[in-house]
Amino acid sequence: MSVTTAKGFVASGVAAGIRRRDRKDLAVVRSLVPATGAAMFTRNRVQAACLTVNRDNLALAQPQAVVINSGVANAATGERGKLDALATAAEAARLLNLTAEEVLVLSTGVIGQRLPLHKLLPALDPGVAALAADGGNDAAEAIMTTDTCSKQASVTRDGFTVGGMTKGSGMIHPELATMLAVITTDYPLEPGEAIEFLRPAVETSFNAISVDGEPSTNDCVILLANGASEAPRNDEAFAAALTEVCADLARQVVADGEGITVLAEINVAGAVDNDQAKAIARRIATSPLVKTALFGHDANWGRVLMAVGSAPYAGDYATVDASLITLRYNGTVVLDKGAPTDVEPDVSGPSCTIDIDLGLGEGRAGYLTSDLSYDYVRINADYRT
Amino acid sequence: MSVTTAKGFVASGVAAGIRRRDRKDLAVVRSLVPATGAAMFTRNRVQAACLTVNRDNLALAQPQAVVINSGVANAATGERGKLDALATAAEAARLLNLTAEEVLVLSTGVIGQRLPLHKLLPALDPGVAALAADGGNDAAEAIMTTDTCSKQASVTRDGFTVGGMTKGSGMIHPELATMLAVITTDYPLEPGEAIEFLRPAVETSFNAISVDGEPSTNDCVILLANGASEAPRNDEAFAAALTEVCADLARQVVADGEGITVLAEINVAGAVDNDQAKAIARRIATSPLVKTALFGHDANWGRVLMAVGSAPYAGDYATVDASLITLRYNGTVVLDKGAPTDVEPDVSGPSCTIDIDLGLGEGRAGYLTSDLSYDYVRINADYRT
Repeated sequence: MSVTTAKGFVASGVAAGIRRRDRKDLAVVRSLVPATGAAMFTRNRVQAACLTVNRDNLALAQPQAVVINSGVANAATGERGKLDALATAAEAARLLNLTAEEVLVLSTGVIGQRLPLHKLLPALDPGVAALAADGGNDAAEAIMTTDTCSKQASVTRDGFTVGGMTKGSGMIHPELATMLAVITTDYPLEPGEAIEFLRPAVETSFNAISVDGEPSTNDCVILLANGASEAPRNDEAFAAALTEVCADLARQVVADGEGITVLAEINVAGAVDNDQAKAIARRIATSPLVKTALFGHDANWGRVLMAVGSAPYAGDYATVDASLITLRYNGTVVLDKGAPTDVEPDVSGPSCTIDIDLGLGEGRAGYLTSDLSYDYVRINADYRT
Repeated sequence: MSVTTAKGFVASGVAAGIRRRDRKDLAVVRSLVPATGAAMFTRNRVQAACLTVNRDNLALAQPQAVVINSGVANAATGERGKLDALATAAEAARLLNLTAEEVLVLSTGVIGQRLPLHKLLPALDPGVAALAADGGNDAAEAIMTTDTCSKQASVTRDGFTVGGMTKGSGMIHPELATMLAVITTDYPLEPGEAIEFLRPAVETSFNAISVDGEPSTNDCVILLANGASEAPRNDEAFAAALTEVCADLARQVVADGEGITVLAEINVAGAVDNDQAKAIARRIATSPLVKTALFGHDANWGRVLMAVGSAPYAGDYATVDASLITLRYNGTVVLDKGAPTDVEPDVSGPSCTIDIDLGLGEGRAGYLTSDLSYDYVRINADYRT
C-alpha cells in the first residue's frame, strides 16, 4: 500500500540533514521501465522554484523519476532557487542514468530559505543506492513536515495497481492540491493521457479538502504510469481506482490536519449549480468561527448560515434565500426551511457531518475539513522558530 | 467622547436580562430635535431580521432613534424574527412618541435564537426613562458582547461634533461593517445627504479591518444628523471629522479583537489598482498562517508571500510577479525585489507593520488585523455554551 505497490516502481527515503539530523528528509521515486506522466500544480501566483522547473521538464520529456526534499520549500528564493532546483534534477539524473528533463523535483517546508545543496546533493547518492521495491514507506516518511504520520494508499484490481503517497497537514487548501502527492500506476497510458485522468480525480479529492484555507506555494500532484502490469485497457476501472486512491490520500491529509480533534464533512445540496455548491462548501470549511465551534463540540449552526451568506461566488456573494435553507448536524435537522427547530444535535464525537440544502436547484458538492484548535495555533506559532 | 457628545442627542443603557442578569444589554439613542440619517448594512446574504426592518423604515421615514440589544442576534429566526423586530420598534416608538418607522433596531449576539420579547419589551420603559445627555457610556456598555471594553470616539471642530460608539471583536470582517456602530452629529444635513458622507468614510475604516474574516449577519453602521449645532455648512470639514471618528472606532474594534495579542497593519502598495491592493491586503489580513505567525512573534514572511499569491481578485487569483515584490516588517526589508535579504526584523512588540510593494503600479490599500491566538480559539469554542 505505497508508491511502490504498482509494478516496476522503486523508492527510497534517506536523511540528508536539511533541517534536522537523523531524520529522513529526502525521497526518490523512479520507474524501472519507461513511464509517462503528468502533474497538477498549485494555482498560487507565487510558485516555488521547483514547480517552474517541473513545468519546463514536462514540456520536454516524459517523467521517469521524482526527487522530493522536506524541510525547505525553495519558494520565494528568486533566480537562485531555480538554479538550485535545476542542480538537484541534474545530479539526480546523473545518478539515475536519466536526462535532467526526465526528473521532477519537489520541495516542502519553510518558504524563503534556499535549498542547502551542500547537504542535499551528496545525499542523492545514498538515496539512489537505496532505491528498492519495498522503499515506499521510507519515501513516505521522508516527505513529512508537520505531519504526524505518513500517508499512503493503493488499489489493485483488474490486473493493475494504483498506489501513492502524500504529505500535508497545514497550508492545506485547494487550488489545487495543497500538499505533495506522488501516485504511481502500472496501468498502461500513452503520453499525454495521464493528465486527462488526473484532473477529474484531483477535483473531487485534493481539491475538496481544507485544513486552514491556505493554498501553498509548493502544491503538486504527480502521476507516473509505466504499463508494467501489462493489464488490458479498461479506462473506466482505472479512472475509478485513481479517484479512489486520491480520495483516500486526501482524507488522510485532513485526518492529520494540524491540531485536528474533529474531522468534519460538509455537504451542500440544492444549489443553483455545482460551482455555487462548492463555493459555499469551501466557505464553511474555511470559516474560523465554524471551525472553533467544531473544536468546542458546539452545534453553533448560526455560524454556518453566516458562512453560507458570505461565500464568494461569481465576483460577489452567492445568492441564497435564508427562508429555503435546511440544515442538519449528524442527521438532526436544526433549521427547517429557514425556521429553527430548537432541537440540539449530538456533536460530541470525533467526526461531524453538516448537511446544507439550499432549496434552489440540483447543484451539490462535498468538502472535508478539520476543526481549529489550540494545537493548530501552537503548531503554527512555533513552526519556524 | 460618546454617542451623546454631539448636541441634541440622549442615550441610555439598561439591563433587560436577555442572556445574563445584572448586565446592561439594551441601549437606546435618540435625537431630541428632528434628525436625518442613513445606514450601511452587511453584504452577507443571510441578514438578521432587524436589518430587513431597518431597510423598510429608512425608505419610509427619517430615523430619530436607535434601539440596540446584545445577547441575541435575531438572525436566522425566520418570519417570527421579523415580527419580533417590528414589535420592538413599535413599543420603543410608543414610549418615545415617535412613529415605528422612525426607530431603527439592531441586535447582536447568538445567531439562531429568538429575541426574548418578554424581557426586552418591558425593559424599554426604564430604557427610555433613563435617556440622558450623559448616557453615552451606558449605551456603549450595553451593546458589548465578547468585547472587553466599550468603544467610543468623537471629534469637535468648526462648531460641530461627530461622536459615535461601536461594538465588535469577533465575526469582524468587511463587507461591510462587521459590527454595530451608531454615529451621531449635530452637523446640519438635508435628508438623503447622510449616505453620501457615510459611504466613503466607512470604506477606509470599518471596511478595512478584519479580526477573523467573518462577515456578520448583523453588521450595520448608522449615522444620525440633527443639525443642533447650528454650525455653518463646511462639508469638507464634516467629511474629514466623520472619517476620523469611523477610523478611530474601527481601530478600537481591531485593538479589542477576540484574543488579540498583536495589532498588525498591512500596507499594500505598487498594485495594478486600489482594488487589487485591497484584495491582497485583505487576504493577508485574514490568513490563519500569517496570523498565527504574528501570535508567535515570528516574521515568517514566506506566509505573507503565500497569501499575496492566493488573493482572490476578478474571479481568479490576482496577477503578481514574485520577482518584483519587496517586503518590509516594521521597516526592515526582508525581501528585496524577490530576493531574500536574510535580515531578521524585530517583531517582538505588541504591534507589527507589514509593508508590501508589488512593483506593478500605483494602487495601494491598508488593512488592520489582529493575530490568531489561543484565546481566539478559547473564546469561540466556548461562546455559546
